[in-house]
Amino acid sequence: MRNILIIGIGAGNPDHMTVEAIEALNRADTLFIPDKGEEKAALRALREAICARFIRRPDYRTVPVDIPRRAEAGSDYHGAVDDWHERIAARYRALFETELAEGETGALLVWGDPALYDSTLRIMERVAASGLALDWQVYPGISSVQVLAARHRIPLNTIGAPILITTGRRLAEGVPADQDSVVVMLDGEQAFTKLDPAELDIYWGAYLGTPDEILIAGPLAERSAEIASVRAEARARHGWIMDTYLLRRRPA
Amino acid sequence: MRNILIIGIGAGNPDHMTVEAIEALNRADTLFIPDKGEEKAALRALREAICARFIRRPDYRTVPVDIPRRAEAGSDYHGAVDDWHERIAARYRALFETELAEGETGALLVWGDPALYDSTLRIMERVAASGLALDWQVYPGISSVQVLAARHRIPLNTIGAPILITTGRRLAEGVPADQDSVVVMLDGEQAFTKLDPAELDIYWGAYLGTPDEILIAGPLAERSAEIASVRAEARARHGWIMDTYLLRRRPA
Repeated sequence: MRNILIIGIGAGNPDHMTVEAIEALNRADTLFIPDKGEEKAALRALREAICARFIRRPDYRTVPVDIPRRAEAGSDYHGAVDDWHERIAARYRALFETELAEGETGALLVWGDPALYDSTLRIMERVAASGLALDWQVYPGISSVQVLAARHRIPLNTIGAPILITTGRRLAEGVPADQDSVVVMLDGEQAFTKLDPAELDIYWGAYLGTPDEILIAGPLAERSAEIASVRAEARARHGWIMDTYLLRRRPA
Repeated sequence: MRNILIIGIGAGNPDHMTVEAIEALNRADTLFIPDKGEEKAALRALREAICARFIRRPDYRTVPVDIPRRAEAGSDYHGAVDDWHERIAARYRALFETELAEGETGALLVWGDPALYDSTLRIMERVAASGLALDWQVYPGISSVQVLAARHRIPLNTIGAPILITTGRRLAEGVPADQDSVVVMLDGEQAFTKLDPAELDIYWGAYLGTPDEILIAGPLAERSAEIASVRAEARARHGWIMDTYLLRRRPA
């Protein structure tokens, strides 16, 4: 039996590491470090800084994981994701078998919280289903959504009302009439610019938790173009961007 | 100008404190400790344990805050909450004025995350609007929802799909047809027992993060009565309960 620790490391600020996550980092014999095309150098440096700062043994061992690219989804999004996850699971299984001895413990570091728009847990299920004797534990981390709310000093919900967390792709269908608080993640297409902005406020943040953090808030009608422009400029300058936002319907 | 630190302290496990939250605790001159009827002795002991463990100066100062009770809501829920928040804000304003000198820093410890079904940030807005010169910062914390997902080792969303976070009261209207992942908080009425359980799985947790944690998961049709019974028994034994759950629609 091999053991894997799935550790939420927060959205970018090492100070968002929990005591539990730090202890988990220190229990791992080997840290598996994914290397995706989308894993930008700045993110890699942040993760290395977290390891260097919090792991007490000086000789901790890391193993790079070459994450396969996802095929273009075309008309079959779920099929493309399914195939991609299967290939990632095969990669992890091979690494767990060769890099961890029986009884050893590995760690996977996940940005934000492993429960929120991250596939690591689904991939672990696949690795286990493939027949490798495996156990794993999950350590929650501070997500970018929480940093967004903290930095804007707002609750995500209004009193007694629900919160919808959704993707840019879904938001393109519009803000549901029965929702007054909608958190949007994974929006590479600036879906907020295509909405009817009437009665909506936006609380937007990019590079949340990092020294490059940008925050903009206000009526969507007044801020939409500004956010799109600031976002494009920052993305060009850094070579990448991660952003998220809350849309809030103003009370009638 | 007085400064207030709004610190998310996690759902019950002191190991869920972040490095940032620990540093914030140590920057406060005075900690304001709410004393509500609903603040059960076990929760108070947990919070005191967090202070004792993480605050480095031995002589830290705490000030109890006697939180007024909310009037029965009757037909005007929002009016009752509005009036209640105004009275809490008046209480905090008076305490900030008498217990903090100009330039001093106070701290408010919030269970879970201040952004999720907590009114502290709304109350701070009211205190500031009343004319007291005040600044405040917010530190996110691990919420019970995140602990629920971590302990069940599940993501909150399915691939590319939204998450609805809602209350027991709202759930009584049924699981929306377009949602496959619904997180339910503040459900004192076991709304899950009144739903059509077909096609739904439940992932339930109580006292999450604490040594008394209880986890139950499975098809809602098979687990609903069991959870209701375990919940009633635990509540009777402890004198209080905090629980939350995820409902997930099985793929067709």
